[in-house]
Amino acid sequence: MNSKKIVIIGGVAGGASAAARARRISESAEITLFERGPHVSFANCGLPYFIGGEIAKSESLLLESPEVLSKRLHININILTEVISIDREARTVTARDRLTGGITHTPYDALLLSPGAKPVKPPIPGINLPGHFTLRNVPETIAVSEWIDTYSAKRAVVVGGGYIGLEMAEQLVRRGLNVTIVEAAPQVMGVVDYEMAGYLHRSLLAHGVAVHLNDSVVCFEEPDQTSDVMASVVVLKSGDRLPADVVVLGIGVRPESSLAKEAGLEIGSLGGIRVDSHLRTSDPHIWAVGDAIEVKNGVTGEWQLIPLAGPANRQGRIAADNMLGANRTYSGTLGTGILRLFDLTVACTGATERSLLRLGIPHETVHLHPNSHAGYYPGAKALAIKILFKAVTGELLGAQIVGQDGVDKRIDVLAAALRAGLTVHDVADMELAYAPPFGSAKDPVNIAGMIAENILDGYIDTVQWHEIAGLDLEKTILLDVRQPGELEEGKIPGSVNIPLSELRDRLSDIPRDKQIVAYCRSGQRSYSACRILMQHGFDCKNLSGAFLTWSAASDSF
Amino acid sequence: MNSKKIVIIGGVAGGASAAARARRISESAEITLFERGPHVSFANCGLPYFIGGEIAKSESLLLESPEVLSKRLHININILTEVISIDREARTVTARDRLTGGITHTPYDALLLSPGAKPVKPPIPGINLPGHFTLRNVPETIAVSEWIDTYSAKRAVVVGGGYIGLEMAEQLVRRGLNVTIVEAAPQVMGVVDYEMAGYLHRSLLAHGVAVHLNDSVVCFEEPDQTSDVMASVVVLKSGDRLPADVVVLGIGVRPESSLAKEAGLEIGSLGGIRVDSHLRTSDPHIWAVGDAIEVKNGVTGEWQLIPLAGPANRQGRIAADNMLGANRTYSGTLGTGILRLFDLTVACTGATERSLLRLGIPHETVHLHPNSHAGYYPGAKALAIKILFKAVTGELLGAQIVGQDGVDKRIDVLAAALRAGLTVHDVADMELAYAPPFGSAKDPVNIAGMIAENILDGYIDTVQWHEIAGLDLEKTILLDVRQPGELEEGKIPGSVNIPLSELRDRLSDIPRDKQIVAYCRSGQRSYSACRILMQHGFDCKNLSGAFLTWSAASDSF
Repeated sequence: MNSKKIVIIGGVAGGASAAARARRISESAEITLFERGPHVSFANCGLPYFIGGEIAKSESLLLESPEVLSKRLHININILTEVISIDREARTVTARDRLTGGITHTPYDALLLSPGAKPVKPPIPGINLPGHFTLRNVPETIAVSEWIDTYSAKRAVVVGGGYIGLEMAEQLVRRGLNVTIVEAAPQVMGVVDYEMAGYLHRSLLAHGVAVHLNDSVVCFEEPDQTSDVMASVVVLKSGDRLPADVVVLGIGVRPESSLAKEAGLEIGSLGGIRVDSHLRTSDPHIWAVGDAIEVKNGVTGEWQLIPLAGPANRQGRIAADNMLGANRTYSGTLGTGILRLFDLTVACTGATERSLLRLGIPHETVHLHPNSHAGYYPGAKALAIKILFKAVTGELLGAQIVGQDGVDKRIDVLAAALRAGLTVHDVADMELAYAPPFGSAKDPVNIAGMIAENILDGYIDTVQWHEIAGLDLEKTILLDVRQPGELEEGKIPGSVNIPLSELRDRLSDIPRDKQIVAYCRSGQRSYSACRILMQHGFDCKNLSGAFLTWSAASDSF
Repeated sequence: MNSKKIVIIGGVAGGASAAARARRISESAEITLFERGPHVSFANCGLPYFIGGEIAKSESLLLESPEVLSKRLHININILTEVISIDREARTVTARDRLTGGITHTPYDALLLSPGAKPVKPPIPGINLPGHFTLRNVPETIAVSEWIDTYSAKRAVVVGGGYIGLEMAEQLVRRGLNVTIVEAAPQVMGVVDYEMAGYLHRSLLAHGVAVHLNDSVVCFEEPDQTSDVMASVVVLKSGDRLPADVVVLGIGVRPESSLAKEAGLEIGSLGGIRVDSHLRTSDPHIWAVGDAIEVKNGVTGEWQLIPLAGPANRQGRIAADNMLGANRTYSGTLGTGILRLFDLTVACTGATERSLLRLGIPHETVHLHPNSHAGYYPGAKALAIKILFKAVTGELLGAQIVGQDGVDKRIDVLAAALRAGLTVHDVADMELAYAPPFGSAKDPVNIAGMIAENILDGYIDTVQWHEIAGLDLEKTILLDVRQPGELEEGKIPGSVNIPLSELRDRLSDIPRDKQIVAYCRSGQRSYSACRILMQHGFDCKNLSGAFLTWSAASDSF
């Protein structure tokens, strides 16, 4: 039997997974777990839903008590205990009991670092005023909730429009607060491209959330005694002043790598612990997982920080095996993520167009708007799908989806395809489950692949939404092929309307010496229009995603 | 420009897809489509939902009128016109107008056969009595609906428990009828294995549907004039007599291959048109797609009839390209399918255990019962997942899922994995989208892969539900590791209860000279129990899927 001494620092996603796996693999290993906080194995990703009341009891967030976990796994769990140093030569960790101050030294054969990440708190004046919160653990979450009750908070300012910021905005609205988001970037949800975030901007507005983009906090002004402001007046760079009864900081997180750094372990350029493909640090007896490490992006090969629960959990399992002598490989992270925002869901996997442009990776882009299931069956909702793929080979590079229904399914299928190294041809041919309540005979994922194939096969050339503004309308006809009644929804300035149904009869209305860019509502009819025009000798391109994509990106905000 | 003469026989899924694709690829091709029925491009898969009223208007089932489709695609559409012969030498088809009887001869350069399949109607006495229906097209569907209204039908007998039979049973219940299903096999939904069909049997019972398994119709007896029976008395082999006001035949379909056969094209052993990997028949100028052809099973390589809309649509597109000179390959069919039955969804992809056993393909089987999303977030429902994979390599062979939520997503991910040739290791490592409303940090699909890995890595050996009945309890301990309170749900006869939480302290209660088979509710805790016992020298196996799978298969019915 393997009586290895395993020490694990951090008892949430990666650490708890590793502990459980290690015990199942080895009944005889001596497993010791240190957790700085009061809880192990809590539902980190569920915290915002407690604030909004969707998860009614804070106990639901505590998946297992230290006592139960300790007994079930037969491991030594030390909560409220902080590891303060690692002696790599002696292979011991020194820990301090946060209640008693008592110091212990624990030897290890294999050490796992799973310390997580801490919320970024920039040195903005007033950031530590009462009523200003981050959302890292259950006590902090309860504190936000109690503050809202105690001070009858009505106005919330959420700083940062990423996963946590948006989830908190949604839940604070659910709780009846007026919510304002402040985001320094030109868009929320930086893990998707600008035009895809456009749908979220609309949804936030529609649900009464004020959004300040391209703006940032200069200071949190302490409210004067006579005011009814409970937390601070949030002063923005733009000069806007936002009275806030509660402030939630969702600016991002930073890897908890100081202990590793002090121990002399290699730290990456992004500040995360550097590990090899076996999740081993620069010390052969120390492994690291979760939010604290840098991971290789599965598409671009770049080092990245991807603080998500899924990778942390799977890494914990792999690291446990490797600590017990296996040689398992972690294959990198795609950054597959998902967020519900009111009635919308947004999800992504792999590279964004932004990152591909930054890295100079040549790619093609397809936007489409298929129904979530067969249109003739009630309840179908349009999806906005974007896929990115390599020219020539058609290898998938990334995908983003926004919609009301079926988003999670399609992103998971595309994430599976991405992991398998599939091409858009494979994606077009995938055999997915179809019955009217669930999909279409050609699933949205198939259609994405088919459109991409049409580009690779030279059947169509496309123009992207961001190229429209730069078109020279002296040399270009912007051809709207929708039915006239549809123009009430809006149109792209400068466009000319010839419905697809009349196109074959009106070819002589279209000048042959100009570049034509066709669009309809979703891009499907304008593709047919392009095919007709191209075969009649016109130089015609299709606007990818057509009016729906263009307008999502172009709505003034 | 390509002015090829293309003739297409059959205007629904495959034929309509092919016509549309061919036109987009070639504006100059002469495309002629013959359809025997009154409609093209109708929603075949939606027919049952009109009966139940979920799709309120029969017009919703008619996706495009022949006139609109004809104008939009600039093709010659002949409805109510039956092609009666193919002159392969002259390359012409002879068609008869079903209204006028007029005969036409149409030349082709490329011919596509997409005639579909016709419902099986065995020569059972009385099968053609009034009130006995198949459900092949919109007029037949309307006829069923009108019959129910006209005769105030209260009792329906559905013959056959496959896709159509079950969808019809659900919809007839929705319409307020008392429904009985008669199925010759020991289970409904023959595309999944017996124990997975067990969940459907329960659901049918719970929704008041009577199910006669292992039974078949001897005759449909004409009701005597004094009786209130509107359709027939359905007499079963068992002797049971079922009064029926309406009878729906969902016995299966048979490829419409007679035209192809008469033309001397190669027909497969299952009666379908035989095509090569480019969907070309034994005549180089003739292609065939859809329900009428035999396809190679993507897992087993067997020829199969898989009459589903998804493959038909994708085949139509590929055949269109090939008729116009491309050389595209159809990669086979996995039989990915899905069905909603009341509150359950059942789905499958790839090979069943039954087919693997029949073909003698060595395989491993895993059952699991994970939550559809994080358990701490409201609304999570248990899924029953079964995966089949090759020993040693771990290559995925098939999957089946039953549950109330998230079934379609997981089957699509597994279908994608199967198409990509992934192993259970890949499946364990897949990075799927996680937020509490959508999944878990370890998605059910990941967990399926992880359990399979544990088998391949030798961490666990399993026993399947069907082996339990044959266990010699003199030599075997059937160890139930659930908490005592859980035994109220039922237990496997002969089992001994030692809760997992007490196991380490009660090792001496367990004889060391017997084989131990452990189970809990889902198989997760009994896996932990096995790991503990194995490492303490016991010979222990885990019951795959544990009590939930065993009881689904064992409920007397």
